[in-house]
Amino acid sequence: MIEDKNQARTNLSELGEFGLINHLTQNFKIQHKTTIKGVGDDAAVLDMNGLKTLVTTDLLVEGVHFDLSYMPLKHLGYKAVMVNLSDVYAMNGNATQITVSIAVSNRFSLEAIEELYDGIHLACKGYDIDLIGGDTTSSTTGLLISITAIGEVTKENVVYRNTAKEDDLLVVTGDLGASYLGLQVLEREKQVFKVNPNSQPDLTNYSYLIERQLKPESRKDIVKLLKDLEVKPTAMIDISDGLSSEILHICTQSNVGCSLYEEKIPLDPQVISACEEFELNSTTVALSGGEDYELLFTISQEDFPKIKGNPHLTVIGHITNKSKGVNLITRANQQIELTAQGWNALTKKD
Amino acid sequence: MIEDKNQARTNLSELGEFGLINHLTQNFKIQHKTTIKGVGDDAAVLDMNGLKTLVTTDLLVEGVHFDLSYMPLKHLGYKAVMVNLSDVYAMNGNATQITVSIAVSNRFSLEAIEELYDGIHLACKGYDIDLIGGDTTSSTTGLLISITAIGEVTKENVVYRNTAKEDDLLVVTGDLGASYLGLQVLEREKQVFKVNPNSQPDLTNYSYLIERQLKPESRKDIVKLLKDLEVKPTAMIDISDGLSSEILHICTQSNVGCSLYEEKIPLDPQVISACEEFELNSTTVALSGGEDYELLFTISQEDFPKIKGNPHLTVIGHITNKSKGVNLITRANQQIELTAQGWNALTKKD
Repeated sequence: MIEDKNQARTNLSELGEFGLINHLTQNFKIQHKTTIKGVGDDAAVLDMNGLKTLVTTDLLVEGVHFDLSYMPLKHLGYKAVMVNLSDVYAMNGNATQITVSIAVSNRFSLEAIEELYDGIHLACKGYDIDLIGGDTTSSTTGLLISITAIGEVTKENVVYRNTAKEDDLLVVTGDLGASYLGLQVLEREKQVFKVNPNSQPDLTNYSYLIERQLKPESRKDIVKLLKDLEVKPTAMIDISDGLSSEILHICTQSNVGCSLYEEKIPLDPQVISACEEFELNSTTVALSGGEDYELLFTISQEDFPKIKGNPHLTVIGHITNKSKGVNLITRANQQIELTAQGWNALTKKD
Repeated sequence: MIEDKNQARTNLSELGEFGLINHLTQNFKIQHKTTIKGVGDDAAVLDMNGLKTLVTTDLLVEGVHFDLSYMPLKHLGYKAVMVNLSDVYAMNGNATQITVSIAVSNRFSLEAIEELYDGIHLACKGYDIDLIGGDTTSSTTGLLISITAIGEVTKENVVYRNTAKEDDLLVVTGDLGASYLGLQVLEREKQVFKVNPNSQPDLTNYSYLIERQLKPESRKDIVKLLKDLEVKPTAMIDISDGLSSEILHICTQSNVGCSLYEEKIPLDPQVISACEEFELNSTTVALSGGEDYELLFTISQEDFPKIKGNPHLTVIGHITNKSKGVNLITRANQQIELTAQGWNALTKKD
């Protein structure tokens, strides 16, 4: 009726997720003096009578972000909250409230949605979050969850992506790549199950990987730890799309370069053994796997003694002049330019 | 794999949208002293250093909330923003920021999404709103828009749903039922178009109805008007699901009854003529049509002189003791109990 068959047509995947957001929002002007930071960081920052309010939102779509054939609904609810809280912690803030909107097809029963909310409830309890609103509607197909998280941070403590400085140290929390491998294990079991529905998989050797995929935690503890250590990062981001993509965000926005040392990237033993089994390069998995929900941050060198030897924190590189570029220094001491090969929500993984 | 075929199964539509939200959120405890109001009003209310922050969110799903065969994407973007702002104005607040998340299938081109954002941009410009974030992802089918709006209001000015008092006057802004009839006209044209794609519909007689459906405005002007008139409503709600449903929300939550006078319900002449043409009862349309995005509020009787004769405001009834019930007083002076027959997003209209 109103469709113009002759209109220009550009495929969305040509721009990628970040390109698309930038393209669509470039004409929007910030008008309110309460808006300190709009699009472009882990969370938006609003100034409410001096206190900074953080706002972030994420959309999870069945068939794109999760597969209910191996993702229990309770875990999904938990994970959906974690994904959002992680963005608040990445601003060095404290998450306080969430809204949860869901669209569900009639294939879901009330009991199924209760399962989902049980997981959301568990996450709220564990992370001290108030559920303050939302919307519940039907969908023509599948399940969709949209969560907005709200947090607070003082003006002195807020940490952005675009403030890394030359010579700063690059630090990552926890270990990387496990969530991606957990997904590979679950996908493989799904294929096995299709062939033989009576198979009883032994997943003991993959327990950590599967837990990281199905029930990730967000690093509220790190925000507290940094406060206790009296370390304020110079820049911070959470790792949702893979280490490589997040380092590039920090470097591009801070106008700096970076040297990342392959040998320093923290890997769990299960990651190393699963990489051997799946014939995957563990560095590639850490760089591009995504869904780790660890924090990546930079600190000034003088803060190094404060974090040295902390089991939660690993120095994996340092910030350089922009002219040096963003590079991986391999174990063989080769220098390879980093490119974002993170998980792109607009080009569904096979 | 993890599905239990024997589990209990309750259909979601048995509870309805509000029953479902209440059911799912009843176990969630409010823990933060900054959370003044959680689930249960047009928007949540947070206390940020004394200033009240309002947060509200809505999810629009293709095939459930809109039909792209007659809803231009630019209008859809505009309307999606209005739906959310309306909830902020219903708290007597000022909307300041939004986040916009979209899920799109690969059937949409970049140019199509640009159209959508043009509408969002127009709404932001016209209502002085900052776009501060969002998420963009793919969907397996169709288009989905999730918007969260943020606003502010002083402690003195915030108006809830649950504070209407006996003898208060019930007031509505603008006129009702036009949006629903606009939808009926567009649905009819769609059927005509299916039969004869070359038909050129003359929609002049329905221009107001169609505009109310495709490009509704939210009543920011009323919040200002009430301030200018020095009237603070005792309770307020926006009309998204139909007058009947909204009156029941105010009465249930305020623990009062209400008498609504049929002859007072404001109707546009196009509503009256279209109701004749479609053989619909105009009162039923006003009560149950929905998507008006007008404001419904109660004021104390002593404020009546301040609003008397104002062309934007119509007194349509008064609040009674709870024991009297919630009733429509017909033109024939009959008393009929009001039941919510508003638009239920969980039972798709045919």
